Amino acid sequence: MKPTLLDCTLRDGGNQNDWQFTATDVHTIVSTLDAARVDVIEVGYRGGSGSKSSATAGPSAHCTPEYLAALPAVSHAELAVMVVPTVCPVTAMDDLPDSPVSLVRIAAYPWNIDGVPEYVRAVRALGLKVGVNLMAVSYTTLEQLAEVAAVVAGEAPDVFYIADSFGALTPDDVRRRIELLAERLPTPLGIHAHNNLGLAAANAVAGLDAGVSWLDASLCAMARGAGNLATEQAAAFLTAWPKYDTHADLPLVCEAAEYVAEQVLPRPMTVRRAEIAAGINDHHFYFQDRIEKISARHGLDPWEVGRRIGAARPRKVLDETVEDVCRELAGQTEHTNGGDA
Amino acid sequence: MKPTLLDCTLRDGGNQNDWQFTATDVHTIVSTLDAARVDVIEVGYRGGSGSKSSATAGPSAHCTPEYLAALPAVSHAELAVMVVPTVCPVTAMDDLPDSPVSLVRIAAYPWNIDGVPEYVRAVRALGLKVGVNLMAVSYTTLEQLAEVAAVVAGEAPDVFYIADSFGALTPDDVRRRIELLAERLPTPLGIHAHNNLGLAAANAVAGLDAGVSWLDASLCAMARGAGNLATEQAAAFLTAWPKYDTHADLPLVCEAAEYVAEQVLPRPMTVRRAEIAAGINDHHFYFQDRIEKISARHGLDPWEVGRRIGAARPRKVLDETVEDVCRELAGQTEHTNGGDA
Repeated sequence: MKPTLLDCTLRDGGNQNDWQFTATDVHTIVSTLDAARVDVIEVGYRGGSGSKSSATAGPSAHCTPEYLAALPAVSHAELAVMVVPTVCPVTAMDDLPDSPVSLVRIAAYPWNIDGVPEYVRAVRALGLKVGVNLMAVSYTTLEQLAEVAAVVAGEAPDVFYIADSFGALTPDDVRRRIELLAERLPTPLGIHAHNNLGLAAANAVAGLDAGVSWLDASLCAMARGAGNLATEQAAAFLTAWPKYDTHADLPLVCEAAEYVAEQVLPRPMTVRRAEIAAGINDHHFYFQDRIEKISARHGLDPWEVGRRIGAARPRKVLDETVEDVCRELAGQTEHTNGGDA
Repeated sequence: MKPTLLDCTLRDGGNQNDWQFTATDVHTIVSTLDAARVDVIEVGYRGGSGSKSSATAGPSAHCTPEYLAALPAVSHAELAVMVVPTVCPVTAMDDLPDSPVSLVRIAAYPWNIDGVPEYVRAVRALGLKVGVNLMAVSYTTLEQLAEVAAVVAGEAPDVFYIADSFGALTPDDVRRRIELLAERLPTPLGIHAHNNLGLAAANAVAGLDAGVSWLDASLCAMARGAGNLATEQAAAFLTAWPKYDTHADLPLVCEAAEYVAEQVLPRPMTVRRAEIAAGINDHHFYFQDRIEKISARHGLDPWEVGRRIGAARPRKVLDETVEDVCRELAGQTEHTNGGDA
């Protein structure tokens, strides 16, 4: 089996550096990965990532026509962009057929999946390939995932991804979700894994075992928080593993990764306490800092506060969301202490 | 299932810092992991690691009676030391019953497994628990592994580990080896995984699926090269995964890992080109630097030189071993070029 390896360094990796890749970075990453025969290179978001920093974000957060026109020519790889329907109007994709991009990935949360079919049809009408990425998949039960699948099944996208945005899934969770989707969707499946529990590779492997044929990865695991499956590690294990096959030239993929390690990443990606806390508590890593600061102000355990936040499966976590949880928890603690006294 | 989690930071991690842990490091690591209820804490090698730097190595490379006597008292964890029969005489273990150590792990390569039974019996005679760690397991075929198992089967050690010293195994390789051992050994099985292909966690998970009940790990993955499965990541995924259970208190394990990240490791563990090359080529990481230097001198591709070294499965790689491979490879290249001309 020859999985399709998709590198998303310039897109998801941009969460680490506010998409401030230089023109040299973009040129080196795209041309080295193309020479290495990585199947798909995702060059950024079209029209913004939807995260707060979008206004200050660098070129690969927007993928303007000028940015796309300046990309180096590719010989092997397909180029992709990601579109988030809640921030990018459907008509803002109209110029993409004039660009070197041939695949558009539509990213949505379970709670706004209904907006996706219109985008899938629009991309198809432009003559481009289209993928759908379901973010925050750990927030859906199997029943809810089946409902999501029903929304996109009729559109038959070229690939349907589950994204473990919070790095909260175990390999068993992945297996159950992929098996369910394989029964309900006529399309190839993909997995975008995050490493908060150190399971990015184990989850990718479980996905492959269960029927996934597309793997997301980023050089040096570059992405928010604990990062993704590392492209060079994915290329390495696909090369080492007899039952898999890969187009990728491992030494050249490693060359691209060395460039990112030395020229792009301010420090290596790590799985530290904060990343683990977000993964185990099942919430977005970018809420973790807020949870720690507000918990400290209340003298509360940030692990317990985070656990309650994740269990509530909030769509957004604002300061007041955390304040509310802290006040509730403090009240219960006082009450318990009172009872003991 | 409640796997036994063994932290080997002070032993295998010492390969990163020549075992130069300060008394404070040792005290903090042991007492924090004990409070976190990690099952076993390996506090070092008794009598040397067998690697070149042993003469200059710090306290946990030797585990003198004084070092062991100075360890903090533990309430939950068992303490272990590792013994390498080729560097530590069997009688050098005689004082261990007077120490807080209750488990001795005997480490051997497939080619010196015959020396192990004497050590197992000696440890048993001292009234201590005993484990056997088979290093370089990727150098054994399944048939050879069966022969190794036959040598130790009669001794019935308390645990038998496979150590993927070169980080070269895939999850399928682990599964096949564990299934074979489970059929042939009446003892609990363990896995010591290295992360050269980014598969330390995936291999540990495959091991657990196939019947492993002991997991080696080290804080922040601290060990030579790409390092081990990280203890805090192991504790995290065992906590997150309903079918497993763990004694470990995750926030406290993370506290121990933060200490190592901030006070012990000069930089985070990474899986860079050199680590991947050693893993994919199936040889010890500490030969990689030599392979790169000598290949460069000959103007040869270090990936190809490394591949030939690993394929030869050498017990030691000296400068002249690499020189020989380079001369052979250069000869073939010249010959091929000559034929083309």
